[in-house]
Amino acid sequence: MRWTKYFIPTLKEVPSEAEAVSHRLMIRSGLIRKLASGAYTYLPLGLRVLQKVQNIIREEMNKAGAIELFMPSMQPVELWHESGRFKDLGEDLITYKDRHNRVIVFGPTHEEVITDLVRNHINSYKQMPVTFYQIQTKFRDEVRPRFGVIRSREFIMKDAYSFDKDTDGLNRNYEKMYTAYCSIFKKCGLNAIPVEAESGIMGGDTSHEFMVLSESGEDEITHKGKKEKAIEIGHVFKLGTKYSKALGANFSDENGKENPIIMGCYGIGINRILAAAIEENHDKEGIIWPKAIAPYQVIVIPTNTADEKINKAANDIYDKLIKEGVEVIIDDRDERAGVKFKDADLIGVPTHVIIGKGLTDGKIEIKDRKTKETQQVLVKDVIKAI
Amino acid sequence: MRWTKYFIPTLKEVPSEAEAVSHRLMIRSGLIRKLASGAYTYLPLGLRVLQKVQNIIREEMNKAGAIELFMPSMQPVELWHESGRFKDLGEDLITYKDRHNRVIVFGPTHEEVITDLVRNHINSYKQMPVTFYQIQTKFRDEVRPRFGVIRSREFIMKDAYSFDKDTDGLNRNYEKMYTAYCSIFKKCGLNAIPVEAESGIMGGDTSHEFMVLSESGEDEITHKGKKEKAIEIGHVFKLGTKYSKALGANFSDENGKENPIIMGCYGIGINRILAAAIEENHDKEGIIWPKAIAPYQVIVIPTNTADEKINKAANDIYDKLIKEGVEVIIDDRDERAGVKFKDADLIGVPTHVIIGKGLTDGKIEIKDRKTKETQQVLVKDVIKAI
Repeated sequence: MRWTKYFIPTLKEVPSEAEAVSHRLMIRSGLIRKLASGAYTYLPLGLRVLQKVQNIIREEMNKAGAIELFMPSMQPVELWHESGRFKDLGEDLITYKDRHNRVIVFGPTHEEVITDLVRNHINSYKQMPVTFYQIQTKFRDEVRPRFGVIRSREFIMKDAYSFDKDTDGLNRNYEKMYTAYCSIFKKCGLNAIPVEAESGIMGGDTSHEFMVLSESGEDEITHKGKKEKAIEIGHVFKLGTKYSKALGANFSDENGKENPIIMGCYGIGINRILAAAIEENHDKEGIIWPKAIAPYQVIVIPTNTADEKINKAANDIYDKLIKEGVEVIIDDRDERAGVKFKDADLIGVPTHVIIGKGLTDGKIEIKDRKTKETQQVLVKDVIKAI
Repeated sequence: MRWTKYFIPTLKEVPSEAEAVSHRLMIRSGLIRKLASGAYTYLPLGLRVLQKVQNIIREEMNKAGAIELFMPSMQPVELWHESGRFKDLGEDLITYKDRHNRVIVFGPTHEEVITDLVRNHINSYKQMPVTFYQIQTKFRDEVRPRFGVIRSREFIMKDAYSFDKDTDGLNRNYEKMYTAYCSIFKKCGLNAIPVEAESGIMGGDTSHEFMVLSESGEDEITHKGKKEKAIEIGHVFKLGTKYSKALGANFSDENGKENPIIMGCYGIGINRILAAAIEENHDKEGIIWPKAIAPYQVIVIPTNTADEKINKAANDIYDKLIKEGVEVIIDDRDERAGVKFKDADLIGVPTHVIIGKGLTDGKIEIKDRKTKETQQVLVKDVIKAI
């Protein structure tokens, strides 16, 4: 990608409303822009990271045997009355009366919808265990949206739901999801800490939250004997029969006896993974993306685009990297080198390839964003060095 | 994928509410289920097709130089007052008053939002041309949702917006998108017919609709001298300055003079592509997926899973195809051969590999779903034959 053909509106100023460091850096590096309270546009660079996180999640969910589907946001309110959660959610629940006077809920979660699907299609122990998941936008009228995408009113969740004939099955599925979550967060470069948690309005008895330590966290956890603030990025619940009993999702067991299906549910706040990754990986210059979710792996920086030799060498390296399948961006703007270095640090691409004066000796510089270590490399050795 | 580990709830019965053949087949083949009026869950098989269509669109949009971003569904009503479209949309517009008494629109389209983004970030002719796109869920309170995903209240659109300093630029961008649309629809296996159209509430002077002929179409077009019904799957508009003037999205030209930005917008109804592909590609047995958007390329059918030899041969072929990177599903259900053949025809996978009695002579049967031609092939030659 060429910077001049792209859209990365970086900012020098710190937006005054942004309290969390991740929020400040997401705006400054041109990842997001606020549209309304708790509703953010993902700009191209931010969307790339979002998609990488989604791909990692999909891969691990599929590996764990979960099956992807896609449910609507618009849910009939009747399902929420059946489950009894209409009143639990209170003003958080976004509802709308349609032109035919039917009340529609814009889903903050999908236990009711998936249980409705399952009660219509699963009626035998032979059809279980089964786990469904989706990656989908949720809506919730937060009292006080804050910290950018950490606490917003519109957000993307991966939500999974398991269905089993007995508690042993639920325990196995819970364990599988727990393990998949550990892999996902690790792959995203996060140190996620699983902690036992309350089940709250979700119901059920056992649940774990996955927390990332951060000053901007809204939860307090005890970690290594200290009270620390943390951001919740995932939550797994053993729901039991709360929803299957309420909605009548039953199955016949081996003896032909009707029983309520045993459920689990498993959520990941996808937008929060971005924020948490930045909270954990940044310095005063900007973001330091973990490689697996970096929007680009390499940025090529010609220090002076007016210098034909520099320009040509930079474009040659860029073309070669593209040919090698490397995710690369070239900062082809007619800007001072200092501006480019600052922006490259800010947006956090892991490897910087700097083409400047050294070129007269046939050398270019490779800088590691994280360690800030640099090395001089001969032009012909650049690809190998990256 | 193994059928028994997946979720393809096929139906023999035609649902009574489904008028369009695509609607009937999407339900019967387990692609979708209705949750509420005009709101459908995509089951795993349907989601796979949806994702394939999205990938084709992404590829062609990126090739055309459009930049992907992702805007919120929740839009401040003030933007709709600024553009003057609040009253145009009338009861179709889904609005919600939040807990702080602010009115939020659940976006049926994003001209207002993208123009707001652009007025805050683009102010010079040097920053154009630029085209943004997104793939995102839209909401619209249709008076009469019908034909399944063809006319629904919640639907997925690819919407693109171009920004230019002059009409020449707009014309070039319009041409580019028009060409990209032709490629997209062709790749999806559709015979899309571009027709000149009214711009309606979108504004602007020139627009083209892309239509697919179908008995379930709600539009009438003249094609080869005949009046025919058609489904609209895409629409491109030269918007001109309607939104940029209303919202004050201006730029300085080469002489430092302020002008309103010239806009175009370009939509594709992604769900409708599925329906249109089925309308165009089916027979009385079921769907005949175009290869590029088929959920799987090959289905392996052991006619009798109780027969150990058949079972082993089928699984060997399945494993080999997976190793070769072929998208394959094996119907490993303990069902009669007739049931499996019917379901394979219904879900429309292009190539059927049938392992049955011929195995005693070392032969298996390969059937082409579209032509219904079959060939007997030696087990060792199966991979080559596919």
